Amino acid sequence: MRFSRSLVPTLREAPREAEIVSHRLMLRAGLIRQQAAGIYSWLPLGLRVLRRIEQIVREEQNRAGATEILMPTIQSADLWRESGRYDAYGKEMLRIRDRHERDMLFGPTNEEMVTDIFRTYVKSYRDLPLNLYHIQWKFRDEVRPRFGVMRGREFLMKDAYSFDLDEAGARTAYNRMFVAYLRTFARLGVKAIPMRADTGPIGGDLSHEFIILADTGESAVFCHRDYLGFDIPPADFDFQDTAALQATVDRWTSLYAATEEMHEEAAYAAVPEADRLSARGIEVGHIFYFGTKYSAPMGATVTGPDGKEHQVHMGSYGIGPSRLVAAVIEAWHDDAGIKWPDAVAPFDATILNLRVGDAATNEACERLYRELGAAGREVLYDDRDERPGGKFATADLLGIPWQIIVGPKSLAEGNVELKRRQTGERETIPLEAVAARIAAGTTATA
Amino acid sequence: MRFSRSLVPTLREAPREAEIVSHRLMLRAGLIRQQAAGIYSWLPLGLRVLRRIEQIVREEQNRAGATEILMPTIQSADLWRESGRYDAYGKEMLRIRDRHERDMLFGPTNEEMVTDIFRTYVKSYRDLPLNLYHIQWKFRDEVRPRFGVMRGREFLMKDAYSFDLDEAGARTAYNRMFVAYLRTFARLGVKAIPMRADTGPIGGDLSHEFIILADTGESAVFCHRDYLGFDIPPADFDFQDTAALQATVDRWTSLYAATEEMHEEAAYAAVPEADRLSARGIEVGHIFYFGTKYSAPMGATVTGPDGKEHQVHMGSYGIGPSRLVAAVIEAWHDDAGIKWPDAVAPFDATILNLRVGDAATNEACERLYRELGAAGREVLYDDRDERPGGKFATADLLGIPWQIIVGPKSLAEGNVELKRRQTGERETIPLEAVAARIAAGTTATA
Repeated sequence: MRFSRSLVPTLREAPREAEIVSHRLMLRAGLIRQQAAGIYSWLPLGLRVLRRIEQIVREEQNRAGATEILMPTIQSADLWRESGRYDAYGKEMLRIRDRHERDMLFGPTNEEMVTDIFRTYVKSYRDLPLNLYHIQWKFRDEVRPRFGVMRGREFLMKDAYSFDLDEAGARTAYNRMFVAYLRTFARLGVKAIPMRADTGPIGGDLSHEFIILADTGESAVFCHRDYLGFDIPPADFDFQDTAALQATVDRWTSLYAATEEMHEEAAYAAVPEADRLSARGIEVGHIFYFGTKYSAPMGATVTGPDGKEHQVHMGSYGIGPSRLVAAVIEAWHDDAGIKWPDAVAPFDATILNLRVGDAATNEACERLYRELGAAGREVLYDDRDERPGGKFATADLLGIPWQIIVGPKSLAEGNVELKRRQTGERETIPLEAVAARIAAGTTATA
Repeated sequence: MRFSRSLVPTLREAPREAEIVSHRLMLRAGLIRQQAAGIYSWLPLGLRVLRRIEQIVREEQNRAGATEILMPTIQSADLWRESGRYDAYGKEMLRIRDRHERDMLFGPTNEEMVTDIFRTYVKSYRDLPLNLYHIQWKFRDEVRPRFGVMRGREFLMKDAYSFDLDEAGARTAYNRMFVAYLRTFARLGVKAIPMRADTGPIGGDLSHEFIILADTGESAVFCHRDYLGFDIPPADFDFQDTAALQATVDRWTSLYAATEEMHEEAAYAAVPEADRLSARGIEVGHIFYFGTKYSAPMGATVTGPDGKEHQVHMGSYGIGPSRLVAAVIEAWHDDAGIKWPDAVAPFDATILNLRVGDAATNEACERLYRELGAAGREVLYDDRDERPGGKFATADLLGIPWQIIVGPKSLAEGNVELKRRQTGERETIPLEAVAARIAAGTTATA
C-alpha cells in the first residue's frame, strides 16, 4: 500500500483523553477513531491488525475441531427470557424495541442463541462432540467505557460453545479450548498465563482467564514465575488425544496462578519467595464449563446410547480480537511507538523513500515494492514528500517489523539500510538481498 | 471438512414460509437459520459462501484503488441530525437509547459517519481522490421482511464512499466503481446489467442499479438483449486511465436498460423488437453520485490548488454480499438443488463414500481427502453411514461443483466417478487422476 494513497492519520501529540499507552499509541498511529463513547472506527492499519489476529484465532479454533458459524448481532428477547437472563443481565445489555414493539437486544454473548440452534438440529449423541463458534461484534453498555478498545462498548469477540453428552466429555472439550488458547496467544506473540477465575454472569463452576502480564494491566495477578518458561503445545498437537489434553492442562495448572478475586494468600505464601510473581495483568481470554445451566431450562437434549434423553453439558470460550490489538501493544512498545510481532503487524515491511522525486531512489523503491509484493509480503511504501526525520519517527511509531531505508548515498553503492523495529538492529545490505533477508528473519507463524 | 463432524442440517421438505426458490434452497441445504423476522444465523456452509463472496468483493474494491476501513454498527444520532436524515429516515432506522439516555441507532448506511471521518483527517486536495469502504452488518427495520436473506433486516453490506475535489473527479470515481462492479459480478458467476435508477433516500442525481435477470426477480426490468453478450473489463484494467473508464461506462450505458421506476415506453419502443428483453430482475448493487449533499451540511472541505476551501464531491457504492448468496442461487439452481459457480461454492468438491466402513473405500476416500486438501482444495467428505441414494440427493441439493463418487465396484478397478454438478456430466477416471482433473476443469477466478 502506498502511504500517500491510504489513510494513515498519525498524530504528534498523545490526545489527552487516552489514559493508557495502548490507547495513546492506537490514536497516535492512526489505527482507530472514536465515534462515540466506547465505539470506534477501525482505520486501514488498525483493521489490518484486527484481521490478522482474527485469522490466527480462527485457524486455532479450526485446528481444535471447532466449527465456524455466524450468529446475528440483534437477538430476540424471548430466548433470554427462556434462560432467565433477560431480567438478570442488567443495564449492560443494550435493549431495543423494533417498529412492531418487539423486545430485541444487541447480543452481549450468545449462549441462548447457540443453544437454540443446537436443540433445533442435534438429536443424537452420535453427533457429539460439537463445538460451534463465531466471530462477531458484541455490545455491552459499560457505564464508563475507557482505555480505548481495551474496554469498549462495541467489540469483536470470538465465542465458542461446546456440547457434550456428559461432564467427562465436556471436560475434554474444555481442555481442547484451553490448549487452543495457549497456542493462539503464543502465535500472536504474547505470553498468556491461564488463571483460575470467577464465573460471573455466564455461570458454572470451572473457569480460567488467560492473562497477559503488563505494567498497565487492569488487575493484580499472582503466579509462579516458572509459567513464563513453559513450552507451548506444538502445531501437530493431537486434539483427539484425551490423555494428552489432560496432561497439558494439568501441567499448566500445576503451579499457583490466580487473579485478584480468586487470590488465596496462604497458598501463594507456600510458593518459594524467589518464584513468586506479583504483577498487573490484562485478561485476553476466558473459558467456562457450566454443565446444564442453559440446556436444562431451554430443553437442549440428545438421545444417549442408552436410548434416554440427556441434557447436554456445555462450555463457552471467549477471546476478544479487538481488545487483543490493544493488549499486544501493551506488551510490545517503547517510547518511540509500537513494536508489532511479525504475526499481527499491519504490514510485514515498510519502505522509506528518503528522497522522493529522485529517479534512482524512486526506481529502487518501486522495484522493492514490486518484488516484496510478488514474494507475498504486505508492504507499506512511504512515498510521501517528507523529510527523513519525519519518516523515521513515523516508521517507529507505526511499528512495522522491518524498515527498509532507501537513501541516495547508500543506493549509489547498490545498498539499502534494513532496520528491525523490535530489536533496533540495523544492517546495510545490497538492494537485491532484501527479500531473502526478510524471509529468513521473519518469525514463521503456524 | 467431514460431514459427520460439521453441522449441515439438510431438509427433505421445503419449509412452508419460504416463498422463493433461493429461500427454500437455503433452508433445505442448511445454509441459514431464521432467528427472528428477517434476522438469520449463517450455518457452516452458508457462512463459507458468504465469506467467498465477501472476499471477491474486497479484492475488486482494492483493485479499483479503494481503501478498506471498518466503521461500527452503532452510531450516534447526532451525526444524522447534522445531515438532516435523522428525522427524514423514518421507521426503517432502528433507533436505540443507551443507558445514559443518549440517542443511538444501528446504522442502515454510513454516509454521515464516513464524512465525519473524512473531515477529521483530510484537509488538502493533494490527498484526493480517496475512496473508503467497509464491509459491515447493517440493519433496516423493514415492515415486512421476507424472501429470506434477499430482504432481511440484518444484512451484510459493502459500502464505499468516494471523495473528490470537483464533479469531474467524482464522475471518474463513479466510473471506477462502475467498472469494479462489472468485474465483481462476473467473478461471482452472474450476469449483472447496469440500469439507470432512482436515488431514493441516499439522494443525488446520478445512479445505477446492477440487476441480475431471474424469473423470480423482485421487479420488472427492460433492456437491450445485446448486454448479455458484452465483454467484462479484464483483470489488468487500468483504473487510473480516466478515458478507458469513461469509454467502458459509455459502452455499458449505450443501449436501453431501465428498472420499472425509470422505464420510458417511448425509448424502449425505439429498440428493435427482436432486441427487446423484458424480464424480472434482482438488484445486487447500487451506485450513487450525490455531489455535496453531505459535505455541505457537514463541512467536509479541502483546500484546493487555488488555496480556497472546496466542499468535496461524493458518491456511495453498495453491494450486499448476504443478498448475493440468495441472488446467485436464483440464477443457479435446478429441481434437485443448488448449482454453485466454482468461485463462490462452499467447497470445491465433495467426496461421496458409498460404503462407509469398507476398508478399501474408506482408504480411497481418506487418500483423496488428504491429496485434495494438500493441493489447496476445500473438500466436504460425506463420511456418514447413509445409503447411496440419500448421499446423491444431498450432494445435488448442496450444489458443490464436483462430486467424487467412491464406490466399491469402480474402486476394484482403481476408478472413481466424477460428476460436474452444473452440467450433470459424468466420467469414470482413475483415483490418482482426480486432483489434476479438478484443477483442469475448475474455472479460475481473478
